[in-house]
Amino acid sequence: VPSRSIAEVGEFAFLASLVARVPRGRATIVGPGHDCAVVRSAGRSLLLTVDAMVEGVHFDRDWLSPRQIGCKSFLVNASDVAAMGGRPTACVVSVGVPATYRARDLSDLQAGVVAAARAVGASVVGGNLSRARQLFVSIALLADAPPRIVTRRGARPGDFVYVTGTLGDAALAVRLLQQRRPRSRPVPAAVLRRFREPAPRLRAGRVLVASGLVSAMIDVSDGLVQDLGHLCGQSRVGAVIRAATVPRSRAYCLHAGAGDTLALHGGEDYELLCTVPKRHVKRLQQARRGLGCRITCIGEITAERGICVVDASGQPMRLAAGGFDHFRDRD
Amino acid sequence: VPSRSIAEVGEFAFLASLVARVPRGRATIVGPGHDCAVVRSAGRSLLLTVDAMVEGVHFDRDWLSPRQIGCKSFLVNASDVAAMGGRPTACVVSVGVPATYRARDLSDLQAGVVAAARAVGASVVGGNLSRARQLFVSIALLADAPPRIVTRRGARPGDFVYVTGTLGDAALAVRLLQQRRPRSRPVPAAVLRRFREPAPRLRAGRVLVASGLVSAMIDVSDGLVQDLGHLCGQSRVGAVIRAATVPRSRAYCLHAGAGDTLALHGGEDYELLCTVPKRHVKRLQQARRGLGCRITCIGEITAERGICVVDASGQPMRLAAGGFDHFRDRD
Repeated sequence: VPSRSIAEVGEFAFLASLVARVPRGRATIVGPGHDCAVVRSAGRSLLLTVDAMVEGVHFDRDWLSPRQIGCKSFLVNASDVAAMGGRPTACVVSVGVPATYRARDLSDLQAGVVAAARAVGASVVGGNLSRARQLFVSIALLADAPPRIVTRRGARPGDFVYVTGTLGDAALAVRLLQQRRPRSRPVPAAVLRRFREPAPRLRAGRVLVASGLVSAMIDVSDGLVQDLGHLCGQSRVGAVIRAATVPRSRAYCLHAGAGDTLALHGGEDYELLCTVPKRHVKRLQQARRGLGCRITCIGEITAERGICVVDASGQPMRLAAGGFDHFRDRD
Repeated sequence: VPSRSIAEVGEFAFLASLVARVPRGRATIVGPGHDCAVVRSAGRSLLLTVDAMVEGVHFDRDWLSPRQIGCKSFLVNASDVAAMGGRPTACVVSVGVPATYRARDLSDLQAGVVAAARAVGASVVGGNLSRARQLFVSIALLADAPPRIVTRRGARPGDFVYVTGTLGDAALAVRLLQQRRPRSRPVPAAVLRRFREPAPRLRAGRVLVASGLVSAMIDVSDGLVQDLGHLCGQSRVGAVIRAATVPRSRAYCLHAGAGDTLALHGGEDYELLCTVPKRHVKRLQQARRGLGCRITCIGEITAERGICVVDASGQPMRLAAGGFDHFRDRD
C-alpha cells in the first residue's frame, strides 16, 4: 500500500523491498542486504559499508560524550567489516549538527572518530559538515576484503549457531540509563563500557572467515533474535536457539533481572553470530584460541523457517519484544 | 576560544581547524580538504568522497520531489569525483527520515539515487536507514582514480583560471523559488533544471585531468568566489577574476537583474573551476572539443593572496555576500 508511512510498513519489511529493487552493477559482487557490500575495483575486492548514529534515536547526549559519539560511530561500522572478515582502511565522515553546537564538542567528536579508526589501522580521509536540527554522524568505511567472501546467505540446516563474547550488556546499560533517577546507583562500569565503547570483533571475524569453517556470518547490532532472523531469512532457513546457552557476562548476571531476556533481543552488542557446518566443529575448537574472545554454540540451523528460542526444558519461549526498529522504538 | 558555537567560529574556519588535526594514515594519498580523498588500497588508487543533503538546509520539500532529492544527492558527490577526474563505481546511501515519511516517497528517493548512479556507470551497493526529525541523505561515493592526481593545491601565479559551462543558474532558481508567491510566474524551466538536476562534469573532469594541462581543480558547489578561495587557499596564491567574462546562460541573462552577482557567489552550479599554466593554454584550446561543454577563461592566479573581482573598467567590485555557509545562511 503505497501511501503508508515507513513506521506502518516496518523498517525491515520496507528495507527488504528497497533492497530487492536495487539493480546489480558491474562493480557489485555483493550488493545491499549484507553487513558490507563487496565491490570490484581495478581487479581487487573491497568492502564498503555505511552506518549512522542519530541523536534521540541511537543515543541521548547525556549518555555519550562527544568523543564517545565519534568513537562509537566508527566502531559500529568496523563491526560490519568484522562480520565480513575484512580489514578497515579508510573512512569518510558526514556530520549534521545544530548551529548552536559547540565547536569544542565537534572537535572532540572528530577526535573520537580519528582515535577509533587509528586503533584498528584505518584513517579518516574526508568528511562533510552540514547544519541539522538533530546531531547525526554517518560514516562510510572502506576495507580490504578477504580472499573468501562470507555473507549472511550460506547457512544450511544442521549447521551449528555460534556467537562471540557475551550478549545483553549494551541493552542493559541503555535500560539502566533510561531508568536512572537523581539518587539512583550509578550504572555499573562494565555494562556501561559495552554500550559506550563497543569492541568490534575484527580479529575474530578475520580468523573465522580465513579458517573457511563458517558458512554465514552477521554482527549482532539489533539483537540476537532479530539479527539471526536476518541471517536465516537471507539463507532461507530457520534456527532453534537454547536460551540457557546464550553467553552472558558476570556483570549482566549480577544486574539484570532473573527472567530478563535482554541477552536474546537487546541491541548494540556488536558480537559476531556465525554458522558452522557440523563437520567443521572440531576444527573450530582448535581455531578458537586465535579469536581473541570466547565463542559459544547456542543452537542449530533448521530447514523450518523462523527463529525458535527454547528454554532449559526444551519449551519454546515467548519473547516480549523483537529487536530494535528505528521507526517503532524509543519515541 | 573553545566554548564558541560552530556558527560563531564559521563553517570554513572550523573545518580548516578540523582538517589540520586529522593524522595521515598509511592508506592516505590525499586526505581531507579536497573534493575527494585518494586512498591506496591493494596497490591501487581510489577516490572516496561524501556529501549530505539536509531538508531545510539544502532544499525544501516542495522544491524537489523525492526522486529529485535522491538524484541530486548522488550528483553532488559525482561532481566531487569530476573535480578529481575520476570514474564513479559504487556508492552507499545513508538516509534519515521521520517515522511519518511515506514509504512511497522513500522508494522514489531511492529510485532517484539508483537512476543517477546508473546514468554514470555506478551502482548503489549498500545503505542505512535511520529515523530522524529531518530528512537527510548522505552518500559516500567510491571512484576509480586517474593515473595522475590533480587537487586544489597546484595553482601557481600566472596560471589562467577557467570555468566550465555557465554559473549562477542554480542560485537564481533558489532565489525565484524563495520569492515565489501563489500568483507569481513559474520559475523558468531552464534555470530550475540546473538546481534540480545538476549535470556533473565527469567527462570534462576526466579529459582535463588526463590532458595534464590543469594545475589545480575544484567543483563550484558553494559559489565561484568561495570555491576559488578554497583552491587559492590550498595553493597559497590569490586570483583576479574579470566579472564580465564569467559565463552566464541565456536564461540567467533573461531572468536575473542587471546588477545581479549570483553568477559570482551563488552556489550549487556544479561546474568545474581549474587553473591552467600559460604555456598550456594553446593545447587547452585544442582539447576543449572533447570536454562536452564550454570552458571559459575568467581570470588569472596572482602571488598576492585573496580573490579580487574586477568590473569591465578594471575596478575592484564589492560583493554583497560570500558563498554558502551552512551555519549562517537560510535560517
